[in-house]
Amino acid sequence: MAVNELVQKLESLSIKPSVSLKHAETTSPASWKEAIIASGSAPAEFELIKTLVYKPKTAKTATPVPVVVIARDATETNSGAIGKKLNLKELRLASEDLLKEFFSLNKDSLSPFSITESVFPKVVTVLDSTIATSSSVFAIHANSSSETIFVKGTEIESYLKKLETEDRKVQDLDFSTLASVAPIAQAAAPSGPAAPSQAQSAAIEGAIPIAIGVKKEVDFASWYTNVLIKADMLDYYSVSGCYILKPWSYSIWEEIQAWFNTEIKELGVQNSYFPMFVSQSVLEREKDHIEGFSPEVAWVTKAGKSDLEEPIAIRPTSETAMYPYYSKWIRSHRDLPLKLNQWNSVVRWEFKNPQPFIRTREFLWQEGHTAHLTKAEADTEVRQILDLYRQVYEDLLAVPVIPGVKSEKEKFAGGLYTTTLEGFIPTSGRGIQAATSHCLGQNFSRPEMFNIFVEDPNDGSKSYVWQNSWGLSTRAIGVMVMVHGDNQGLVLPPRVASVQVIVVPCGITAKTTDEQRANINKSCEDLAKTLKKAGIRAKADLRDGYTPGYKFNDWEQKGVPLRLEIGPNDLAKRQTLTVRRDTGVKEPISLDNVAASVSTLLETIQGDLFRKAKETYDSRVVEVTKWDDIVPALDNKSIVAIPWCDVEACEDDIKERSGRASEPQDERAPSAGAKSLCIPFDQSRWTPIEPGKTKCPACGNDAKHWTLFGRSY
Amino acid sequence: MAVNELVQKLESLSIKPSVSLKHAETTSPASWKEAIIASGSAPAEFELIKTLVYKPKTAKTATPVPVVVIARDATETNSGAIGKKLNLKELRLASEDLLKEFFSLNKDSLSPFSITESVFPKVVTVLDSTIATSSSVFAIHANSSSETIFVKGTEIESYLKKLETEDRKVQDLDFSTLASVAPIAQAAAPSGPAAPSQAQSAAIEGAIPIAIGVKKEVDFASWYTNVLIKADMLDYYSVSGCYILKPWSYSIWEEIQAWFNTEIKELGVQNSYFPMFVSQSVLEREKDHIEGFSPEVAWVTKAGKSDLEEPIAIRPTSETAMYPYYSKWIRSHRDLPLKLNQWNSVVRWEFKNPQPFIRTREFLWQEGHTAHLTKAEADTEVRQILDLYRQVYEDLLAVPVIPGVKSEKEKFAGGLYTTTLEGFIPTSGRGIQAATSHCLGQNFSRPEMFNIFVEDPNDGSKSYVWQNSWGLSTRAIGVMVMVHGDNQGLVLPPRVASVQVIVVPCGITAKTTDEQRANINKSCEDLAKTLKKAGIRAKADLRDGYTPGYKFNDWEQKGVPLRLEIGPNDLAKRQTLTVRRDTGVKEPISLDNVAASVSTLLETIQGDLFRKAKETYDSRVVEVTKWDDIVPALDNKSIVAIPWCDVEACEDDIKERSGRASEPQDERAPSAGAKSLCIPFDQSRWTPIEPGKTKCPACGNDAKHWTLFGRSY
Repeated sequence: MAVNELVQKLESLSIKPSVSLKHAETTSPASWKEAIIASGSAPAEFELIKTLVYKPKTAKTATPVPVVVIARDATETNSGAIGKKLNLKELRLASEDLLKEFFSLNKDSLSPFSITESVFPKVVTVLDSTIATSSSVFAIHANSSSETIFVKGTEIESYLKKLETEDRKVQDLDFSTLASVAPIAQAAAPSGPAAPSQAQSAAIEGAIPIAIGVKKEVDFASWYTNVLIKADMLDYYSVSGCYILKPWSYSIWEEIQAWFNTEIKELGVQNSYFPMFVSQSVLEREKDHIEGFSPEVAWVTKAGKSDLEEPIAIRPTSETAMYPYYSKWIRSHRDLPLKLNQWNSVVRWEFKNPQPFIRTREFLWQEGHTAHLTKAEADTEVRQILDLYRQVYEDLLAVPVIPGVKSEKEKFAGGLYTTTLEGFIPTSGRGIQAATSHCLGQNFSRPEMFNIFVEDPNDGSKSYVWQNSWGLSTRAIGVMVMVHGDNQGLVLPPRVASVQVIVVPCGITAKTTDEQRANINKSCEDLAKTLKKAGIRAKADLRDGYTPGYKFNDWEQKGVPLRLEIGPNDLAKRQTLTVRRDTGVKEPISLDNVAASVSTLLETIQGDLFRKAKETYDSRVVEVTKWDDIVPALDNKSIVAIPWCDVEACEDDIKERSGRASEPQDERAPSAGAKSLCIPFDQSRWTPIEPGKTKCPACGNDAKHWTLFGRSY
Repeated sequence: MAVNELVQKLESLSIKPSVSLKHAETTSPASWKEAIIASGSAPAEFELIKTLVYKPKTAKTATPVPVVVIARDATETNSGAIGKKLNLKELRLASEDLLKEFFSLNKDSLSPFSITESVFPKVVTVLDSTIATSSSVFAIHANSSSETIFVKGTEIESYLKKLETEDRKVQDLDFSTLASVAPIAQAAAPSGPAAPSQAQSAAIEGAIPIAIGVKKEVDFASWYTNVLIKADMLDYYSVSGCYILKPWSYSIWEEIQAWFNTEIKELGVQNSYFPMFVSQSVLEREKDHIEGFSPEVAWVTKAGKSDLEEPIAIRPTSETAMYPYYSKWIRSHRDLPLKLNQWNSVVRWEFKNPQPFIRTREFLWQEGHTAHLTKAEADTEVRQILDLYRQVYEDLLAVPVIPGVKSEKEKFAGGLYTTTLEGFIPTSGRGIQAATSHCLGQNFSRPEMFNIFVEDPNDGSKSYVWQNSWGLSTRAIGVMVMVHGDNQGLVLPPRVASVQVIVVPCGITAKTTDEQRANINKSCEDLAKTLKKAGIRAKADLRDGYTPGYKFNDWEQKGVPLRLEIGPNDLAKRQTLTVRRDTGVKEPISLDNVAASVSTLLETIQGDLFRKAKETYDSRVVEVTKWDDIVPALDNKSIVAIPWCDVEACEDDIKERSGRASEPQDERAPSAGAKSLCIPFDQSRWTPIEPGKTKCPACGNDAKHWTLFGRSY
């Protein structure tokens, strides 16, 4: 049914859908919501709804009566509990065939309005009773992937009620009495103040309106989005999968750039800029490589009103764009090593759920591309760069990582081998690839590829160069947020915080004289100045009309590492109260020699953040030697180290078997099987592998290396 | 005729075209050459050819006999002189109709091979005799816009000779005896060493192979390209109109970035990043604005193998992409001013001749976008930023500019007014827009546009914000090259040179002992170290196997501001010989206190470069009050200051009349009429305008302001 038909029909039933709008095409609920918000014309507050169809156990000769469940998108719909309530056995999500048969639709197109006069009598319709009575607005997909209508909960009920017959009524069900986890709070729309939370268990009790509103450990995905929005890190954008990096996050990127630039320049790397466009023929030169990227390449086919003669790609990465010129520029061994880097954006038009910083269609990164005379030189550089990346994560972002090498299956498309830093998100129990440094070997330099060679200075023979490429992206910022953030919001490590210290005047009451107030404000300003002179990024928050409490929350949410409070009593004692963002610990320090004490305190915070995250990571890397222990460990939000055989087929098998065996999870993040994360360079943490004796727990063959497997981003 | 047919035909005549290749589509000779080179499969050296058709004066009743002239692309073909040689009167370039009639082709598709058996007897065929005897390879357009074949000059002659009849022969003509300017040297192909120059007058006598090879004042376009390639600033790229910025030029951009970032952060501007994509509906929101950009917008329509539901634009500039979010973020006067900047690339798919740095399809820039409560604040900032741009040009790049305001016709599409820096390229006598700072007024904030308002803190009324946008691009680098470069190559101002001082060991002969040599080298290295410690970007060139002369040329070509030579005699005297790149002046200085003397010398060079360029610019801004003086001044490579009436119709008229009146120029840079460059803020250089008395020399109406008019880029 087309949207306008549906709208007409609803209006004939005296239901007025509030808005109908076009937005980017998408199929997953998360990106659907994002697309709706990004389209800009959505109501300020709305909720997503889901329509699920279950089939109860039915005798083979009988016609099944499907159960259609209409619930809030985030409500955990426990099929066992629903079945119990309805006295139906073994509810299972209906097959595509059954959906076709009853609704002539697939699951992504289902909505409450798919239940028509002809369908209603043949199914059991279950409506969340809190929706039925809600005047909140719900977004309904309306049988089209790019249009949405918004109706109130009461209107949904009204629509369904009109379909009732003598024999068949709408079943109201209070899901909060069924599921252990109640509906989650709505993710804050990017505009305006936080949406009042409808959730009970995820909502943080007593939280003031500007706070995050969702608990990290209960609804991690919403928490993450809320933190980013509330901390002013990011905003959604009208093109799906693309995000605006606001100054609060971009400044972190600038810190990373400044540090990394200094380091690579020490190594003789030079910055440059290559065009964002790649011609089709150049892009498709390396077969393995392009196979890895082609499904995600964005193509420009028009300029102004003219069609281009050939489509032009936007770079997903620049190997094939750059190497024809390496071939041209490298004429003699004296031109080696050639070490270029660029800071740019690349585009990978992923169709998976986008997630800010973690998986986006355009992202910022640096890509280094170097060419060397010998493999040994290339090998050395691969590890030097990986160690710089480790320092970015561990020393700047206070995020622990495990360096290692990727399995053959997971290595860079077209390369020789890939070294990687594997990060870990404790809340989801998933590994995350943090940065990679690839040795491409001679795969791109060989004659049938880009033909990059020099005369060997020793024997005059043709030497094809050894190449590396290496990249670090803004994903690092997302990992940092996920690792350190808490239920008050963002927690920034001091090294990358654009504001390291916020000074807040306190203790001003109705009785405070103007002079006293001015004195306190001036002391705050002086303190900020003193700290700035010492190279500390400090700021005094002297905004009028805001309470200290509001300011505390505001800066906590934004993750400022250290708050200094100054009130009349502090002034009298020549002290300031320090409040750590990471621990909440409060301690007065003297205003004498304050820059040195604050500096030390910031270093302590930086160190503590890393130590805490490292302890967590370490505790979640579980040594496993028996197959049966793998899935329970994964379900326990850990990753596993197993003595692995290094065989690709075994890796496929592990992924398939662990995926099948694992418990069902939140539908929005379907439980994936475990894949190999990396073979850590440091094997010494685990019992040494005895050649010929230690066996791979997955296939029983000889183990080669302790290897990390886990669910991952 | 399709290319493969042509190739077959030529082969049947025993002519073997050496290569046939596909390249980007283009119609202009300059970008055609570029496209061929960029395609990567061109011969290392080749020349462009042009085929021109003239019609002699013919009685109305007679059938004309067109003259087909085949010459080097850069040869100046003087129709008068050709006519004289052939005893034909009043040769004029043939009309499209005549081309259709004789060749069934338009002028862009003409080639020597368009002259077939049937055509040859009906035309006079003139072949440059130096082509007829040349074994050089010439690129021939081959009747297709995207395929080129390469044949030798002798083969072209051979082809034409075969068409000869009793009555009609090929006319060989030595154009160098006709035209005052001989064929120019071939622009160096990006790969390999400089092509040996075929030109006589443009070639620099005695130039060694690595030098530029073309004189700036004779063939400016080729000189510019050669300098960029030889100085390692840039390379051509396989997508036409896009260029690779190599470290030698990118480092200049980094210097500009570092300086400008510090300055704008002082003004409270914050860096951020907005996505490169803009949805169609958002892009097209402001009508005037989009009219200015839409013909040049690149559109993404496909991702992987899927067509996008709606095409998505790549930003040509970011006003419309950013302002929907300004509307969202600006909720109260406390959110003002909002000052964001981003360093990014934008795409304007121009169909005019691309020129590296000056006009490219993708370019790097910064774009600042700010919102203010009052017009006064916005006005102030517009000028603050323009003055920062002036400092980038004058203080960093040593390039003089004239600040002023654009006429209504030339202002930013959709803005209120545009302030600008106008630069000047003495060699071409053209003005060039160097940077612009726009006040957008309330055009983008008004309710029917992006609806960005706050409550006025004073009276509570709705106040629509005042916005500015301002941008500076890598064009600045191109202007710098054009202004300072000379026939030895690039000349870099010290402030932006990534190598400010090059130290070269000299005086090493066959008699020099290993110990002496080591001593000299070490002294050079020590000197470089001493300078580096003092913050001077110095480098010792200790490369083995290159003569000092080679090194001198190499670094001169790359524009390093100062060379220090150290030989045995210098060491004995504890001195080093300084050689300035800009003047060639040599002077020994003591090695004692060398860092201070070098530092002073670099400042002197910086100052002298600016002073010299400023004197030239000033001498070429000619005060003109009579119409008849305008075109001669333009032809004399000047721009004019006229007391202008500020009326748009008059501006159109000036452009049209000055274009018509001016002398014919090089075909590749067709003589444009003069347009208004800016109304300088400083009007005091000229005789004060007397209201009601001083008249506009173009229209005779009352003059308002002294305004610069000129040919421009």
